[in-house]
This record gives sequence, C-alpha cells and structure tokens, in this order.
Amino acid sequence: MGKLYVVGIGPGGLQDMTLKARRALEESEVIVGYTKYIKMVEELLKGKEVFETGMKKEVDRCKRALELSKDKVVSIISTGDSGIYGMAGLILEMKKEEIVEIIPGVTSSIAAAALLGSPLMHDNCSISLSDLMTPYDLIKKRVLLAAEGDFVISFYNPRSKGRPYYLRECINIIRKYRKNNTPVGIVKNAMREGEEIIISTLKDFDETKVDMMSMVIIGNSNTFMKDNIMITPRGYKL
Amino acid sequence: MGKLYVVGIGPGGLQDMTLKARRALEESEVIVGYTKYIKMVEELLKGKEVFETGMKKEVDRCKRALELSKDKVVSIISTGDSGIYGMAGLILEMKKEEIVEIIPGVTSSIAAAALLGSPLMHDNCSISLSDLMTPYDLIKKRVLLAAEGDFVISFYNPRSKGRPYYLRECINIIRKYRKNNTPVGIVKNAMREGEEIIISTLKDFDETKVDMMSMVIIGNSNTFMKDNIMITPRGYKL
Repeated sequence: MGKLYVVGIGPGGLQDMTLKARRALEESEVIVGYTKYIKMVEELLKGKEVFETGMKKEVDRCKRALELSKDKVVSIISTGDSGIYGMAGLILEMKKEEIVEIIPGVTSSIAAAALLGSPLMHDNCSISLSDLMTPYDLIKKRVLLAAEGDFVISFYNPRSKGRPYYLRECINIIRKYRKNNTPVGIVKNAMREGEEIIISTLKDFDETKVDMMSMVIIGNSNTFMKDNIMITPRGYKL
Repeated sequence: MGKLYVVGIGPGGLQDMTLKARRALEESEVIVGYTKYIKMVEELLKGKEVFETGMKKEVDRCKRALELSKDKVVSIISTGDSGIYGMAGLILEMKKEEIVEIIPGVTSSIAAAALLGSPLMHDNCSISLSDLMTPYDLIKKRVLLAAEGDFVISFYNPRSKGRPYYLRECINIIRKYRKNNTPVGIVKNAMREGEEIIISTLKDFDETKVDMMSMVIIGNSNTFMKDNIMITPRGYKL
C-alpha cells in the first residue's frame, strides 16, 4: 500500500522546510516535481526514483504522482506551501482511492515578508497576477477591492514576458487609494540563490526590477519604513 | 554580543517547525513567550532561561526580549508565523541597536487549510476579527470588500467572549455575496492537542462551534466539497 505526500518545501533552502516535510521526503521512494524545484532538494534524492517535468506540465505530474502512489511512498513537491497556488488542489481534484496527506510549508509571501521586516502584520491578501487560468478583469477587480479595503497586498507571479504591463496597471489601481510614499517591497528569490531585496514606494516603483521569481508586497495606509525595514504596525500602543 | 531571533514555531508540534526555527531555539540561551506557547516547545527548554507572561503582555515581553538580547542569544516565539499577527512587528518597532532576525513559520490559516483540503488554492485574504486594536467598522468593511472580490477568506481570532456576535455578523455580510452551499471550514487547534475539524456551509454555519483557538475559512464561488474535503480549484482543465 502506497501513499502520496503533497509537500510544501518552503522558499527553497533545506533549513526552511518543516521537519515533517523533510521526513516525508526521506521516507519517499519517489519524488515528483518541476525540474527547477527538484534541484532544490537534490541532497535528499539519493537512491530515490525522480519524476520531473517542465513548466505547465502540472496535470501530467499529478497524474503520475497519483499512479505511483498506489504501491509506493511518493512525495510531490511545491515550493512555498503546496496549498497556495501549489499542487495540493489539483491532486485533491484528481485523487480517487489514493491516500493523500498535505504537508504545509512556509509560503512565498511569508518568506519575503520576513526578509523585508514585518509588512504582513495586519489584514492582508494574496493575489496572483497570472491570467493563465483567471480572467484579467477579475484580477483587476480584486486589486481594486483590496486597495479600497486597505489590505496589505502580496502579488504572486507578478510579471512575465507574456504580460509585462499587468503589474504596472495593478500598481496604478492601488495608487488611487494609497499615498505616494506607501512602502513597496520586492523580494527576488527569497531565501534561495540569487536573493535580492528592493525597497521602494508606490511613487518610485519600477516594474522592470520584477520578474516571475519575485514577490511584491504593498503596504497598507499605516505601513512605514524604519532603517530600511518595512513595518506594518498591528496597533500596539508604545 | 547577543542576538534576538523572532521565531514562528508553526501550528504547535515540534515537527511543524522549520529546521531553522528549531536551530534558533536550540542555540538560544533565553526563550521568551506567552505561557501557553512556551509549553509547546517544552522539550527544547532544558538548561535555558525562560521569560513567560500571560495574554496582553506583548509589549512587556518584547521589551524584555530586546533587553536580554544585548548580551545573550534570545528567541521570542509566536505560534504560526511571527510576521502575521505575531511578535515581529512590535519587535521591529521597538528595536534600536539590537540585532534581530525574523524566522518565518507556517501560519495558522495554512496549517488549517492543509487539514481541510486545499481551500486557499486561489486568491485569498486573512482578516482578524479582534477589535482590540482595529475599529470594528474597518473589520466589517474589509469583510464586505473581500466577499465582493470573491476572495477565499480566513478569519483569525474569530470569536471571543467579549465579542461573541462579530463572527455571525461577518458571516451574514458574506452570505449576501455567495451561495448558501459555499463550503466553510472550521479548524480548532490545528496540528496540536485537541484538534477538531468541522466542515459546514454558509447556510448551516454555527458560530457557537468556534472559539478563539479556531481558524474559519470561507470558500470562494468555485470552492466545492469532495468526500468531505474542501477544494478551491486553481482552474486547471482536467
């Protein structure tokens, strides 16, 4: 009898994974994942079967992972948390009799926030700017309502070659609701090779510094900078 | 020279902590935290100094942690992630010359989601229903805008004795925008002693099942139930 672990490996480094995630990978006979993410857990792959595919092959990967899990212990990995824009949803949609366990991880916005300071300290939302499976009009509507509600906003998949100007348009929507000096944090490759942290404001925001591997976090009306650290106060009286 | 780690220990079990968080606790000479959370890491406290305080003593705890970190290695702990309604913001606001490192963890909504299935698979927001530091009118405004934007909604601090009816009022706001059969997941004590998982709908939601230790997750217009599992589809074509 096999089993399928759906594992969020966290931002990328082995030390940013939970112990439960690490044990699931160690216990697994097969590891399934996107090629780039498989590399991140290379140290744990010795003696294991690996099934890796390129981008946009999510359905193939999930199908294979479920098949293999009928008589083997298998882990399918996502970076961050598998339940936030990761593989958990697809696996659960496709699953029949297989035994599946979701193992949570540190999602990308939380990893980026820890590097920027504490921008997510109050009510916040995550919006993916990828329109592959979500109409762009709905994405813009969500950005507008989040801006109006003074939520701290984290943009996942903020910019790709196919939609270079979405991010700028979404930032422009937010500009109508927040001050020019609202802090904006950009983190590329949070807690992995090539990490880069950029602090900006709504006024000076330069979308060309953002790529698909970045997380963009826009502060709320109370967010402020202190010694290059981005802080959203919870509201404690000091 | 000392150092202060601001550690998110995850939902509660030692195996749900990242390796980096565990190493920070092991390295620390002093652990600071809310009494209830200190108990969760009891196994790691041998030979260490402990400074614990009760609820609503956050400022005292942070002050003490910062003082001690001038010449000792100190960890101040939050459950979940310290950057989401945790101690990171207050520490960074109060910090002067002290060396501070934020170590991210698995936040409560992500842990609860993993137990429910994959409810957070698409754009989502977190709202705290505690009005200790946020006007209730602003909380309700955020709930309304999140409902209108079809965000999956996670309620932190959903219900306490001082405000027993806020949760019902907020659910009523959402009912105006979503179908009666929209799935609602309640998780009490996610991944710790006393764990309880309740699946309901907007129509049948019973707020008396919810306490301060619960997480409430309301699906978006596409969220569905399958074999008692709550799934928000990302949108892949199957």
